[in-house]
Amino acid sequence: MLVSQLPFKPTKTTPSDTETKNHQLLVQAGYVRQLMAGVYTYTPLGLITLNKIRNIIRQEMNQVGGQEILMPMLHPKGNWQKSGGWEDIDVLFKLKSRTGKDYALGQSHEEIITPLVKEVIQSYRDLPLALYQVHWKFRDELRSKSGILRGREFEMKDMYSWHETQDDFEQFYEKVKQAYLKAYQRVGLVAKVTEASGGSFTEKISYEFMVLTDAGEDDIFYCPACEYCVNKEIAKVKAGDRCPSCQKADLAEARASEVGNVFDLGQKYAKDFNLTYMDKQGNHQYPIMGCYGWGTTRTMGVIVEKYNDEKGIIWPRAVAPFDIYLVDIGVEKSKAETLYQQLQKMGYQVLWDDRDNETPGSKFAQADLVGLPARVVLSERTGDKIEFKFRNQETSQLVELNKIPDVFKQE
Amino acid sequence: MLVSQLPFKPTKTTPSDTETKNHQLLVQAGYVRQLMAGVYTYTPLGLITLNKIRNIIRQEMNQVGGQEILMPMLHPKGNWQKSGGWEDIDVLFKLKSRTGKDYALGQSHEEIITPLVKEVIQSYRDLPLALYQVHWKFRDELRSKSGILRGREFEMKDMYSWHETQDDFEQFYEKVKQAYLKAYQRVGLVAKVTEASGGSFTEKISYEFMVLTDAGEDDIFYCPACEYCVNKEIAKVKAGDRCPSCQKADLAEARASEVGNVFDLGQKYAKDFNLTYMDKQGNHQYPIMGCYGWGTTRTMGVIVEKYNDEKGIIWPRAVAPFDIYLVDIGVEKSKAETLYQQLQKMGYQVLWDDRDNETPGSKFAQADLVGLPARVVLSERTGDKIEFKFRNQETSQLVELNKIPDVFKQE
Repeated sequence: MLVSQLPFKPTKTTPSDTETKNHQLLVQAGYVRQLMAGVYTYTPLGLITLNKIRNIIRQEMNQVGGQEILMPMLHPKGNWQKSGGWEDIDVLFKLKSRTGKDYALGQSHEEIITPLVKEVIQSYRDLPLALYQVHWKFRDELRSKSGILRGREFEMKDMYSWHETQDDFEQFYEKVKQAYLKAYQRVGLVAKVTEASGGSFTEKISYEFMVLTDAGEDDIFYCPACEYCVNKEIAKVKAGDRCPSCQKADLAEARASEVGNVFDLGQKYAKDFNLTYMDKQGNHQYPIMGCYGWGTTRTMGVIVEKYNDEKGIIWPRAVAPFDIYLVDIGVEKSKAETLYQQLQKMGYQVLWDDRDNETPGSKFAQADLVGLPARVVLSERTGDKIEFKFRNQETSQLVELNKIPDVFKQE
Repeated sequence: MLVSQLPFKPTKTTPSDTETKNHQLLVQAGYVRQLMAGVYTYTPLGLITLNKIRNIIRQEMNQVGGQEILMPMLHPKGNWQKSGGWEDIDVLFKLKSRTGKDYALGQSHEEIITPLVKEVIQSYRDLPLALYQVHWKFRDELRSKSGILRGREFEMKDMYSWHETQDDFEQFYEKVKQAYLKAYQRVGLVAKVTEASGGSFTEKISYEFMVLTDAGEDDIFYCPACEYCVNKEIAKVKAGDRCPSCQKADLAEARASEVGNVFDLGQKYAKDFNLTYMDKQGNHQYPIMGCYGWGTTRTMGVIVEKYNDEKGIIWPRAVAPFDIYLVDIGVEKSKAETLYQQLQKMGYQVLWDDRDNETPGSKFAQADLVGLPARVVLSERTGDKIEFKFRNQETSQLVELNKIPDVFKQE
């Protein structure tokens, strides 16, 4: 893609009214635009990154046997009355049709998927079952000032699973947990599995996947020596306490952002919607249900919070919209065009800053802002070689074109 | 994919409460489930087909220079007040946040994209510009009984373009028109370009892309001898009149479904949102704006209306969720498994009906219902060969595995 054709270009001007790094940098580098607090447009650049994140979590969910579906966002009131959510959930957006029908905008989909799978789950042979979607949700947040970390409209991968026994649920949960950790790792994040409240409907513990960042809206206590981690909201420990799990270190406190979660829903929704299956003995039973959230848009924001410097974003390669930011300085356009084509033929995704009305210095600054993994410069000075620089390194090197794959391997 | 693992399986039972073929067949074959009138869930099978349709229109929009973005669905009241739509559009869903803010749910995105591109369109050098999205829309329909032909929640590809001159808009419109016709052709449809009203805000003619089908909700007059076609709503002709364009035949009347449309929006939204650019002479001008809708979910429904028989759906190959429905009869599972793998290695997408509790006759009926382009049977009787049958042909043939590509070419 050519920078000259990017409709939303990186800009020197820092946007006003941004309280978080992800908001500031994603706007300044041209990835998103805010329509109103908590509601964003994704530009061509931003959509490429979002699609990469979406596809990584899709692959991992398919690996654990999840099947992708797509559920509506407009929900009948009746479904939310059955679960109690219509009255109890304060972030639920409600609206009326002109004929007087009441709807909710989906803030989660237990109320839709539970009655949906009644036809699917008839017998123990139909279990376990796991369905997921990657779709938009709505939450009537009182405050939404954290960029794409907390949207009034945001996207999640939400998976739901059903099981014969608690044991089977726990086994599946363990698989999903590993898949989540792998997916976070693939997008460049380290997530801590954190004990948290199970929500208003249950006494059970849930697990949140937390990434340490000051932009987060949660406080956690974690052990530096083992994997123990608990949300401050339910913690019976405090910072400085000896880790109750490994006894080897003192607990630290940190701000964190919840990029995913898992709820053991037990039989709540099965009972609300009378979802039963016939067990091996021919008796009707309520299945055990789990739900697994993974924020796609929030993850994009957290990646920016974790990977940036004073110059801009530093995308991990798996989610960067392009691999290479190509800058040509004082060489014939046709020579730069040839390199642009060659790099693409080698399998790289290239953003070529082909503009004539920008100085090299300005282009370098914008390359840093956009945050692609590598910058390639073609100029008279580079001769037959090109200048190659990783975004996260200070020094550049002169390399031959065919050596670029080797250089990428060294990163 | 294995039929045994499909959560929503094809069923003999014709669903009640369906007024249209697309609704009946898409539910019965397991592609969608209705949550409420006009609001549907897409099952794993349905989502594969929807994704194929989405990607075809994306490719064609990229070809004409459109760039994909993603805009929000939750819109501030202010944007809709500026265009007049807040008061005038009766299908606009409205809602309030708990702090009393008014929102609309997007039924189109002129009100969002026009202010969005104010930063993009500064000078005549920034024109033309074309941006599109593939995203969900909401319409508060009084009646929504046509399956996925008329949703209260539905998906469209909506593109918007801006131009210096009327002439430039017309040229771009012509390119989009050809791209639309190609995209319809790729999904198996023939669309008629139909003159229609420009809507409530303009005296201009718009163009609708109409596919003849009794399930449609429009009436058109068309010439069997040339491309003349007009929506009955604005027609000054009637059925039986001599074609005013070619004079060679009499106009016919037909029911049709609008699968796409183009509006010449002139300067309306540019004026509403004060979107101007600097022309070559240094004067501020309002650009000419066009908008181009292409229904993805409706197109899926119209394809089913056009391609079905008493046995079920007959998908055109480009949008079929799989190429081949594989049935094994009385052979060892490992032999069928090998064929399933071989067909996939040959590049085919295969749905294998691996169930043991269904008779061959029932599997054949379900294969016809699901409507994949080809059915392949492996049995003792077929020996080293396999039985191959196109869904849209009556007879089957015994072929060797490596001849399947040739057979597909003969379709």
